[in-house]
Amino acid sequence: MKQAIKLASCGLYTSYPNPAVGCVIVRDGKVIGRGYHHKAGLPHAEIMALQDASFDVEGATVYVTLEPCSHYGRTPPCAKKLVECKVARVVAACGDPNPKVCGRGFAILREAGIEVVEHVLEKEALFLCRAFMKSIVKGIPYVAVKTGMSLDAKTALCNGKSKWITNSESRAKVQDIRAKSDCIITSSNTVMADDPMLNVRYEELKKKNRKKIDFECARQPLKVILDSNGNLDISKYQIFSKGQNLLVCASDNLEELNKETIINENVSKVYINRSSDGHVDINSLLEFLGTKQIRKVLVEAGSKLISAFLDANAVDEIYAFVAPKLLGKEARSAFNTYNVLDLSCCREFTLHKTKRYGNDVLLHYLLED
Amino acid sequence: MKQAIKLASCGLYTSYPNPAVGCVIVRDGKVIGRGYHHKAGLPHAEIMALQDASFDVEGATVYVTLEPCSHYGRTPPCAKKLVECKVARVVAACGDPNPKVCGRGFAILREAGIEVVEHVLEKEALFLCRAFMKSIVKGIPYVAVKTGMSLDAKTALCNGKSKWITNSESRAKVQDIRAKSDCIITSSNTVMADDPMLNVRYEELKKKNRKKIDFECARQPLKVILDSNGNLDISKYQIFSKGQNLLVCASDNLEELNKETIINENVSKVYINRSSDGHVDINSLLEFLGTKQIRKVLVEAGSKLISAFLDANAVDEIYAFVAPKLLGKEARSAFNTYNVLDLSCCREFTLHKTKRYGNDVLLHYLLED
Repeated sequence: MKQAIKLASCGLYTSYPNPAVGCVIVRDGKVIGRGYHHKAGLPHAEIMALQDASFDVEGATVYVTLEPCSHYGRTPPCAKKLVECKVARVVAACGDPNPKVCGRGFAILREAGIEVVEHVLEKEALFLCRAFMKSIVKGIPYVAVKTGMSLDAKTALCNGKSKWITNSESRAKVQDIRAKSDCIITSSNTVMADDPMLNVRYEELKKKNRKKIDFECARQPLKVILDSNGNLDISKYQIFSKGQNLLVCASDNLEELNKETIINENVSKVYINRSSDGHVDINSLLEFLGTKQIRKVLVEAGSKLISAFLDANAVDEIYAFVAPKLLGKEARSAFNTYNVLDLSCCREFTLHKTKRYGNDVLLHYLLED
Repeated sequence: MKQAIKLASCGLYTSYPNPAVGCVIVRDGKVIGRGYHHKAGLPHAEIMALQDASFDVEGATVYVTLEPCSHYGRTPPCAKKLVECKVARVVAACGDPNPKVCGRGFAILREAGIEVVEHVLEKEALFLCRAFMKSIVKGIPYVAVKTGMSLDAKTALCNGKSKWITNSESRAKVQDIRAKSDCIITSSNTVMADDPMLNVRYEELKKKNRKKIDFECARQPLKVILDSNGNLDISKYQIFSKGQNLLVCASDNLEELNKETIINENVSKVYINRSSDGHVDINSLLEFLGTKQIRKVLVEAGSKLISAFLDANAVDEIYAFVAPKLLGKEARSAFNTYNVLDLSCCREFTLHKTKRYGNDVLLHYLLED
């Protein structure tokens, strides 16, 4: 199952909007097939592994990180294929909460006399596809926030300069995080200050592709630019010249809300509910992105937007890259959240992992309850 | 030598003002003696190891982390004792920069026909006794700064509350850091706000003493309270009721500078040069502490004093404990240093180590050039 989870992790870059799933087939104590789901429309992990084993799998055990599917989508149901191939046993890490599956995959296997073992390394598998799981269960995307800051939690000097606070190794890791996101959210302030591209430099990722991820299947994440008052001149910034961009403005007019209109081949626009502070309401935005099947968003912005997500309790994880510097008292803060008045009521995150990048360190927090 | 360095590390808590030194004696590939220097006035590491080997060491090899001493201090010179005992070889990690030794230890051994090998694991040994080395070479103490802060680099809520930001595991580690310091420096502001003891709770350290450190030899660090304008009422705060306290005020009067006067059995007072900003001049303070043979100080205070040390370029290392919380925009900052105007001129630290304490993480930086 560990091998299957490792295979599944290769799919995190490309399987959107499907979950990343890995599969390993074993017979007589020997691995005879391996596979993972590369991309929607291409075969699922089980079929990739069956192909790898040349379908010669009678009596074998199939280790798969997610319940095999039971429905006809763009591909026929995997559960039926496993029955056809007469495998003896299916070991699964977790069930598929997708209402089209949700136990029916396991039922098809059991009805055909195949032994089914569930919950093997379930925690690890659920963690791997946590964005998919939240998105399916709650209907809104999983939200990660990234910040690159100094030890005094600043993201720009007092004069606005911010290139570069973190080192090149940290910035390379950001490329990896972006590549696993369906969507990057930023603010008009960040666009005006930095004129960023916010794209994934796949050429760089391909060069050091030790895991042999199928980047040929990859696509650029959707870029979502929050421009509450509609002031941004889209002809002026390079972000709007490439890929798919969604400009989001705030509105009180119920009639025009949540309707996406096309501006040009790279840009469309939508009005989202205005919150009491005059900005785009974060939870309404996430609901809208949920309807577009966006499963995982990465927020890359200044302290205002990051803090709006945090104060709306809309963040699932934080990637904080900490550079070994102090930028000074009047430098710009990475966070700008509401004032806590009592430490016993202060929300505590879980430190998932720390990782060094040269003299920078990534502090990776999970905020789930 | 690795074993000798490990032994030396036990002395870091108690050897003040002497360096922490470890020694291992090997004959026929077998360790026959181990020792470390516990406390000034007690035998040096070499003598402890010779005793452990019952002085039956003819022809043996002695691994020692610092050049054996050559002078009569409170104990006779170790180099001569090694000659007497007819050891065949001495392997040393680093030379002793103390002007009373400084190569003469090695010379005595070589003159007696003993083979001497230098620079073995020198980097590791120098790192272990970095405070002693700086203090001997520069005449001022080695300065560590500790802060316990949230992810947004805050050390207290907007209403001043700060108990507790970091968790109990982090706070236990602070006890260990204090125990290795000769002196804790804080400010009158911190004393007035928190009424801290700033003592080492040796009972706690003794309970989990896996390395078998000789805490019986330990003493409470000197507490230095900076009170530039002499406003602090020493009868009101518990810090002054125990241990040794040095109250430091600022003065322009050359006559009264650097003379320590006794206030009561727990408190003495000194006037130190006033800096241009009206506070105690940090470098003058360190020079004064140097004359008192203080080798390693730990600064535990709010952002003002910590930043005064940082802005004076007087800090050698930072221990930043980061708790998994956000305290809010108006909470009190951990750092308040001068504004950097150009990132290419910004001083970069070395990230020495990161270590988890539950969901807190310690970021340990070295600032040496």
